[in-house]
Amino acid sequence: MSARNAFYAQSGGVTAVINVSACAVIETARQHPERIGKVFAGRDGIIGALTEDLIDTSLESAADIARLRHTPGGAFGSCRYKLKSIEQNRREYERLIEVFRAHDIGYFFYNGGGDSADTCFKVAQMATAMGYPLQAIHIPKTVDNDLPLTDTCPGFGSVAKYVATSMREAGLDVASMARTSTKVFVMEVMGRHAGWITAACALAAENEGEAPHLLLLPEVLFDEARFLVRVRESVARYGFCAIAVSEGLLGPDGKLLADSGVTDAFGHAQLGGVGPQIAQLVKQQLGYKFHWAVADYLQRAARHIASRTDIEQAYAVGRAAVEMALAGENAVMPAIRRLNDMPYQWDIMAAPLDQVANVEKKMPKEFITADGFGITAACRCYLSPLIAGEEFPPFRNGLPDYVRLQNRIIKKELLPFVV
Amino acid sequence: MSARNAFYAQSGGVTAVINVSACAVIETARQHPERIGKVFAGRDGIIGALTEDLIDTSLESAADIARLRHTPGGAFGSCRYKLKSIEQNRREYERLIEVFRAHDIGYFFYNGGGDSADTCFKVAQMATAMGYPLQAIHIPKTVDNDLPLTDTCPGFGSVAKYVATSMREAGLDVASMARTSTKVFVMEVMGRHAGWITAACALAAENEGEAPHLLLLPEVLFDEARFLVRVRESVARYGFCAIAVSEGLLGPDGKLLADSGVTDAFGHAQLGGVGPQIAQLVKQQLGYKFHWAVADYLQRAARHIASRTDIEQAYAVGRAAVEMALAGENAVMPAIRRLNDMPYQWDIMAAPLDQVANVEKKMPKEFITADGFGITAACRCYLSPLIAGEEFPPFRNGLPDYVRLQNRIIKKELLPFVV
Repeated sequence: MSARNAFYAQSGGVTAVINVSACAVIETARQHPERIGKVFAGRDGIIGALTEDLIDTSLESAADIARLRHTPGGAFGSCRYKLKSIEQNRREYERLIEVFRAHDIGYFFYNGGGDSADTCFKVAQMATAMGYPLQAIHIPKTVDNDLPLTDTCPGFGSVAKYVATSMREAGLDVASMARTSTKVFVMEVMGRHAGWITAACALAAENEGEAPHLLLLPEVLFDEARFLVRVRESVARYGFCAIAVSEGLLGPDGKLLADSGVTDAFGHAQLGGVGPQIAQLVKQQLGYKFHWAVADYLQRAARHIASRTDIEQAYAVGRAAVEMALAGENAVMPAIRRLNDMPYQWDIMAAPLDQVANVEKKMPKEFITADGFGITAACRCYLSPLIAGEEFPPFRNGLPDYVRLQNRIIKKELLPFVV
Repeated sequence: MSARNAFYAQSGGVTAVINVSACAVIETARQHPERIGKVFAGRDGIIGALTEDLIDTSLESAADIARLRHTPGGAFGSCRYKLKSIEQNRREYERLIEVFRAHDIGYFFYNGGGDSADTCFKVAQMATAMGYPLQAIHIPKTVDNDLPLTDTCPGFGSVAKYVATSMREAGLDVASMARTSTKVFVMEVMGRHAGWITAACALAAENEGEAPHLLLLPEVLFDEARFLVRVRESVARYGFCAIAVSEGLLGPDGKLLADSGVTDAFGHAQLGGVGPQIAQLVKQQLGYKFHWAVADYLQRAARHIASRTDIEQAYAVGRAAVEMALAGENAVMPAIRRLNDMPYQWDIMAAPLDQVANVEKKMPKEFITADGFGITAACRCYLSPLIAGEEFPPFRNGLPDYVRLQNRIIKKELLPFVV
C-alpha cells in the first residue's frame, strides 16, 4: 500500500488547545511516512478544501510544529461554515471529494464540534457513495463541552481553568474592598446552551463565603425575585456577592435574557450582554455598587493558563485520530473515556460519528443544586480533574511566545470553485 | 531606643501585588525586633485605624506571610475612604494619632495611590503638630501608573502584562476566524485618566498586522470619523481589527464617552462601558461582526500572570519603606528610579511626599504616535521591561493557591469612633 496524503481542518470557534490536536495529527503522521505522505491543512477550515487552498504543513519545521502545542487560536484558520445536507447541496460534497482526489488525500481529519462531526459523517458517506477510498475521522473540540460520548471536549478544561482562576482572583479583590466599594460582581462567561463553563466558575470556591456565591445557568430559567433574595443574603452574610452568569441565560419565558430587544435612546440595540444586564438589575432593585466583566474571547484563547489535562487530551485525540485512520477506521471520533475520578484516569475509544452528530450534551439535573444557583458534589467531582495541571507556554519579552507558521499554499490542480 | 509598633494599611483599589508590599513590610520589620515590635494592619485600610480594628500580624506564621507574595487582592482589606483636609475634619487626624498613641505605634506605612500619599503627608504633619513621634512612609501602589517621581507604580506592570497577553491571545483567536466570523474585536481596559494600561496592550503586537491595531487613549479626544476610517483600513489590510480602549475615553466634547447619559427603553442608564459602545458604533457604521471584552477586576487581580519585575519592585518598595523609617525618614515615599532601559536597571530612592501628593502623571505626548492611535518606540522602550519575567503562584487542585490570613483583631483600648 503506497502512502496517501492527509487533510486536516479546524472548524468553528477556536480554543486554547485546538492547535495541540493539530500538532498531534502532524507529528503522528510524520511518524508513518510509509502510510501517510503530506498533511495538508485547509486554509480557514473546510472552506480551504472547497477552494483548494491547501497549506503544505510539510514545509513547517518540526520545531515550529511542536510550538503549536503552546499556541492558542487556529494556526491554519478556522471558519463558521456549515455544509448543508447532501440533498440540499450535493455539489459541495462532490467538490470536496474532487479536491481530495486531485491531491491523493486518503485521510480526512476534521477538528471541531457537533456541526463538524455531522459534516465529517456526511463526507464519509459521500466518499463511499462515490467509491472514493477515504478514512474520515472527527477530532473533538469545543469549549462548550457539549459533545456526547466523550467524557469532555478538548478546549473546555482550559476555559474552565481560566474562568475558575479569574473568579477566584476577582473574588479576592472584591472581598477586600466590599466594605466601602463594590458589593456585587458579575462575570459573564460563554455557553449558549449548556452551563458547563458557568459551572466551572464554582471551582473557585473551596470554603464557605468564597466567590462565586451564585451561578446563573442556561439550564435554569431566570427567576428575578428568587435571585435578588439570594444576592441580598450573600451581601448580608459575606459582605459581597460574586455571580457567574452564562451568556445563554434564559428568562422565565424561555427566551434569551440578553436578546430582549431593548434599545437605547438612539434606537440602537442594547450594547451589553447579559452580565451588565444582571449587574444593572441588582443596582436598580437593591442599590448595591456593582462591577461586571465579560471575558469573551479572552477565556477561550487563554493558553497561558491552559489545563495540562486538557492539553494532554487534545494531543491524545489528535494522535488517536491518525492511529484510527491507519487502523482502517472510518466515520468515527476519538472519544475520551473516564475510567476513574480520583486519580483521574482516562483512555481513548472510537465513537461512531452517527451517534455524535447533532446531539447536544447539557448539564444533567444531578449536577445542579436544588435551588438552581450552584453545582453539586457530583458535578465538582466531574469537573475538578479537567482543570488539573499546568503547562505554561514559553515567554519572551514578558509575553507568551506563540508560533506563526508560514502557511504556504500548494499549487492548485482544479478550476476555481466559488463558496 | 526601645522597640515601637508599626501600623500598615492598604488603600484604594487593590492589585495583584499589593500583598507583596505587605509581605515585605512585615518580613523586614520582623528582622528588626530591637526597633520594631508588632506590625498591626488596619482592617479595611485606614478605616481600621479610625475604628481601632487592628489586625495583629504577629499571629500569622512566617510561611503564611511569605504566601502573601503570590496572593492578589488586599489581605487585610482596603477601602475607598479619603480623609478630608485637616481643616475640614481635624477630628479624624487627631483620632488616628490617639489610636497610634494607645498602641505605641511609631511607624505608619500607608500603601496606596495619589490620595493616600496626600493622607500620609497630612498624618505626618499632624503628628508633628501634636508632638507625637511618628515616621510616616507612603508605599506606592496603583494600577493606573499615575504617580509622579517614580519610574512606575507597583501593580501596573502586572496589569500591563495581563492586558498585553490577553490582547495577543484574543488577537490570534480573531485572526483565525475573521474570514467568516468576527472582524472587529474591542477590549476595554482600566485607566480613568491616564492611558498607561491601554498603551500596554500595544506590547502584544511585534509584527505588522498583529493585534492590537488601534488604541483609544484617554489622552486623545475620540474622533469618530478618523477612527472608522482606520478600522476599515485595518479590516481591508489584515482581515480584522483589534482595538484596545480605555474606560476613560473622552468624546470630542471632553466628556466621558461611557457617561453619555444614554438610557434604554426602560429609562435605565446604559448598561455597557465604552468597550461595547465602540463595538456597537463600528457595527452600525461599518456593518462588521464584532465582539467585545471588558476585563474589569480580572486585570488587576490576575496574580497568576503577574510581572516578576512588578513583584520585585512591590517587594522592594515595601522593604525600603521599613528601612527608611528605621533610618529616621518621615513623609517620604520609596520611589523607583530607572537607571537603564535595556537591561532594565533600577534602584529605590526617597521621594518627598509633598511632591507626590495630588500630582497625576499622564502619558507624555512623545509616547503617543502622531495619529493618536498608537504608541511610539520611546513608549515601548519604557513599558517593555515592566512586564518582564514570570513568577507563577503555586497551584493546588488546578487553581492558584492563595493564602487567607487569620486576621485577628487586637483588644481595643479606646472608646468607639464612628467613621
